[in-house]
Amino acid sequence: MTTARTGTPWLGLDPAHPFGLQTLPYGSFTTPDTPRPRTGVAIGDHVLDLTGATAALLPEHAALFTAGTLDALLAAGPATWDRVRAAITDWFLDERHRADIEPLLVPADTATTRLPFTVADYTDFYASEHHAANLGRMFRPDGPALTPNWKHLPIGYHGRAGTVVVSGTSVVRPSGQRRTPDGEIVFGPATRLDIEAELGFVVGTPSALGRPVPLADAGRHLFGVCLLNDWSARDIQAWEYVPLGPFLGKSFATSVSPWIVPLAALAHARVAPPPRSPRPLPYLDDTGTEPWGFAIDLEITLNGHRLSRPPFAAMYWTAAQQLAHLTVNGASLRTGDLIASGTVSGPERATGGSLIELADNGNRPLTLPDGTTRVFLEDGDEVVITGSAPGPDGTRVGLGEVRGRILPAG
Amino acid sequence: MTTARTGTPWLGLDPAHPFGLQTLPYGSFTTPDTPRPRTGVAIGDHVLDLTGATAALLPEHAALFTAGTLDALLAAGPATWDRVRAAITDWFLDERHRADIEPLLVPADTATTRLPFTVADYTDFYASEHHAANLGRMFRPDGPALTPNWKHLPIGYHGRAGTVVVSGTSVVRPSGQRRTPDGEIVFGPATRLDIEAELGFVVGTPSALGRPVPLADAGRHLFGVCLLNDWSARDIQAWEYVPLGPFLGKSFATSVSPWIVPLAALAHARVAPPPRSPRPLPYLDDTGTEPWGFAIDLEITLNGHRLSRPPFAAMYWTAAQQLAHLTVNGASLRTGDLIASGTVSGPERATGGSLIELADNGNRPLTLPDGTTRVFLEDGDEVVITGSAPGPDGTRVGLGEVRGRILPAG
Repeated sequence: MTTARTGTPWLGLDPAHPFGLQTLPYGSFTTPDTPRPRTGVAIGDHVLDLTGATAALLPEHAALFTAGTLDALLAAGPATWDRVRAAITDWFLDERHRADIEPLLVPADTATTRLPFTVADYTDFYASEHHAANLGRMFRPDGPALTPNWKHLPIGYHGRAGTVVVSGTSVVRPSGQRRTPDGEIVFGPATRLDIEAELGFVVGTPSALGRPVPLADAGRHLFGVCLLNDWSARDIQAWEYVPLGPFLGKSFATSVSPWIVPLAALAHARVAPPPRSPRPLPYLDDTGTEPWGFAIDLEITLNGHRLSRPPFAAMYWTAAQQLAHLTVNGASLRTGDLIASGTVSGPERATGGSLIELADNGNRPLTLPDGTTRVFLEDGDEVVITGSAPGPDGTRVGLGEVRGRILPAG
Repeated sequence: MTTARTGTPWLGLDPAHPFGLQTLPYGSFTTPDTPRPRTGVAIGDHVLDLTGATAALLPEHAALFTAGTLDALLAAGPATWDRVRAAITDWFLDERHRADIEPLLVPADTATTRLPFTVADYTDFYASEHHAANLGRMFRPDGPALTPNWKHLPIGYHGRAGTVVVSGTSVVRPSGQRRTPDGEIVFGPATRLDIEAELGFVVGTPSALGRPVPLADAGRHLFGVCLLNDWSARDIQAWEYVPLGPFLGKSFATSVSPWIVPLAALAHARVAPPPRSPRPLPYLDDTGTEPWGFAIDLEITLNGHRLSRPPFAAMYWTAAQQLAHLTVNGASLRTGDLIASGTVSGPERATGGSLIELADNGNRPLTLPDGTTRVFLEDGDEVVITGSAPGPDGTRVGLGEVRGRILPAG
């Protein structure tokens, strides 16, 4: 990774802006005037049209940005990621580029963001010990909180890539089968609709079938990070998930934030992950490697009211370990694979990453400022998850937001 | 669906050929002379270059075949599927087309087949009652053979779309974690490597997010069928699968046959599925609908020796029910979604669709003609699954084969 060039951008940004020069996240957008998708980079309250900017100022890489998605940039690999980021930084620091760049800045409030890349395979992990233990106690009250395998491998499953949607997409309450407390099997709208606040790691460089990706190579393959809400229908999930895992309880929608923050922007946020015991098998043992914990603070709001501040730094398994595990059997990576962390829950109840934890499986309803209470989501509820991390020179690196509103069952 | 035109093709085909005019399966191929992928239809011992044939004889649909995959044809929908099939049938029946078509026939043994379509989401079901009960007894010996939900819903999970490979691709023995009988956690090459003989149903027409696809619409969305081998590492799977389902035990490779047989070719193979009890919920109740059982006979060989003849007609849940279930929560379908049936196992042990069933979980080793025995796959073993179904006028509709050889762990 190249060292970040710092300085004062000519744009006159508030240094406290979460999308300052320290962040430079990538996305895809349209405007009313230009309905054709363009690739953009968020800077302050603007979006720079990268499709236009690279054509003018970075012609050797302009082909990566013509399709209006991040797919080609993701596939281009770390050397190109560094060159493009360095060039964009330079454009905003060097007054000479102002005349070229300024006309390509679009006010962010006129841009409609789109799903920024083509999701290849979507895998969802389960990497918070607190979350896994909390849910284990609720779903399997007669057994130990953690399953015997939990501390030996990062448990995960494949989710539905085709229903990953961009922030702002409404979520229709799913219908499905559930078993009532008295054992009856009924069909209808989910009654226990929940959220899961997560981070998603986006794969750039693919890998070959039959060739595991070692821990030390994770940085060559992982491009960046988004916020992710793994909407979950607990009643559907509880009835269906034995023995093959979650299916319809999760597959109706997974929301992601529109701006992919490159890992290069998170260099100051790296922290050591929690100690592990037992020590993982060698292919998962990250002792002495670059740390893959991140001091990213999430915040969950429901209808504008803050519910929780889950700390990503508490996650037991890292994305590098998940990548190593995912490929240790020879499975290949594709550009656009989305690796979700699993629900981010801290040790205290007020840092839970899901309503089922925050409301203690319905036993402690949450009271909102309007006097209503919640144990799960109601129709019309809007959930927003935001996140940020420490950047250089006291700045914060913003992850933006992932937002979604519940519509009544169809 | 249009009525099939019948007659004697000018090609002089053996009427017993499984790829006769009754079949006309679609695929993607290259030849040593033409490394650019072309779309083809298999006919007898030849492949017709559809990219060339449609350019000459079906120009209004030629754009569907320029990319050399089936993606555009799949997306075009049932009216186009019928028109293209009728046109191809006509080309082979009408001597007037011979001069145009004959130069576009490629000997099948010079064609290298490719993955015929872009796999969107890959879901794998569990629809054979015999298989589910057999495995339930082995994996959960202390409980009932079937989980309580099994007869209420078609259980399924998402698999790894990125590791679906075409027949002929070698499979490297996966490595992973397993728990030894004395409870030790070890890492190494899988010791219980197995097959699962399945059918894969390929989605053509997509559906909208939030809009369930009713049973009666399945034929508008499903294009055709392939053979599928869901390679499974039983030891990796047994250790990892609680609570989120199979992951690395399955994700290293899934093999599919190269020739997608359109459902139009299977009209004579439709049979009523087995009776269900309890009666499924209304969205899964297929009483009185077009039958979605198929009298397709599979055959599994290991190193040329026949191991089993699994009967697809015995499957409890149909692809139409799986499609209705998959979407009942509002999940959308994409062109290229691959819906695997689950292992096809009949009621007798000799009709099992996996080695773990055929060798009774290692208790009854299979003896091969060379005198060696198997309980699971050894390095160098080659597995071939073939299949066929009744066609019109006493013909058989061939499904071709899915073939794979095990390479030693890397």
